[in-house]
Amino acid sequence: MLIIGIDPGTLFTGFGIIKFNNNNLKKIDSGVIELSKSKSLPDKLKSIYDKLEFLISEYKPDEFVIETAFYGKNIQSTLKIGYARGVSILSAANNNLPVYEYSPREVKKSVAGRGAASKQQVGFMVKQLLNLDDTNLKFDETDALAVALCHIFKLKSFTGKSKSWSDFVLNHPERIIS
Amino acid sequence: MLIIGIDPGTLFTGFGIIKFNNNNLKKIDSGVIELSKSKSLPDKLKSIYDKLEFLISEYKPDEFVIETAFYGKNIQSTLKIGYARGVSILSAANNNLPVYEYSPREVKKSVAGRGAASKQQVGFMVKQLLNLDDTNLKFDETDALAVALCHIFKLKSFTGKSKSWSDFVLNHPERIIS
Repeated sequence: MLIIGIDPGTLFTGFGIIKFNNNNLKKIDSGVIELSKSKSLPDKLKSIYDKLEFLISEYKPDEFVIETAFYGKNIQSTLKIGYARGVSILSAANNNLPVYEYSPREVKKSVAGRGAASKQQVGFMVKQLLNLDDTNLKFDETDALAVALCHIFKLKSFTGKSKSWSDFVLNHPERIIS
Repeated sequence: MLIIGIDPGTLFTGFGIIKFNNNNLKKIDSGVIELSKSKSLPDKLKSIYDKLEFLISEYKPDEFVIETAFYGKNIQSTLKIGYARGVSILSAANNNLPVYEYSPREVKKSVAGRGAASKQQVGFMVKQLLNLDDTNLKFDETDALAVALCHIFKLKSFTGKSKSWSDFVLNHPERIIS
């Protein structure tokens, strides 16, 4: 099963694509759609949409997972997250992909064991779970991979009775490819 | 020249298409994309996008005009406006239409002479300017037509030295088709 995870924003939209089955998790692709501040809003939204369309047609994921908006920022940044989330979700809908949403807190808790985990901790766990030694991964990228991992964890077919990915790693050190 | 005006929302998105030249304003189409509350967010966004794509391919407007978000609502409704605006603007970008934005205040001021004009006053002026006797027009529809009219007014090729549409009507009673 192939999952695409998205961490949306109008300047940086992270994406991560993970393949999994009962015995294996594998990162297929990840990256950041970086947009120049000087681009117009229509051009930014088109760039996000076009890139996600491309990724979906290229990899044909089975499910689409996106982080819910983070509340508590100002109204202007909430609107911008709305734009980026809107066109991202539309790319899934236009390709008949089921859409799942998780809050940043759920994602952090699932991947790093704590809802208040730092981006560094999340990034560290993402690299451990996917056996990545790439030190150049950006936070938008590891966050997007974390969103996909959160969903895979919720599917429960992979992790059995563990309460989170970090719990799973503790319980099953043999499952981590070193 | 053909202008499409949009008043976006996740439950009701108004649209209005107006043709104009130096001597004439004509409503070509208007309506409301009404979405059931029970629809999922991806389905709502797809419905808005598909309908706007249809209208653009059907009428081939030259310019796309959309109301900016109204601030001061809560964060949840701001996000929803962001979704609806995002996919609306994307439909324009994907069809290479230039996008123009006006605040609700600018629209009201342009059409009804006052930034704090009521929806009723805006609706009344829209009907007068476009010579519509349809009493069934909804506010989302007259608001969208008002957005298009605001843009046409700003283009200044139509109204000469008048400060707003209501000012124009006062100065040029002969231009209103009764």
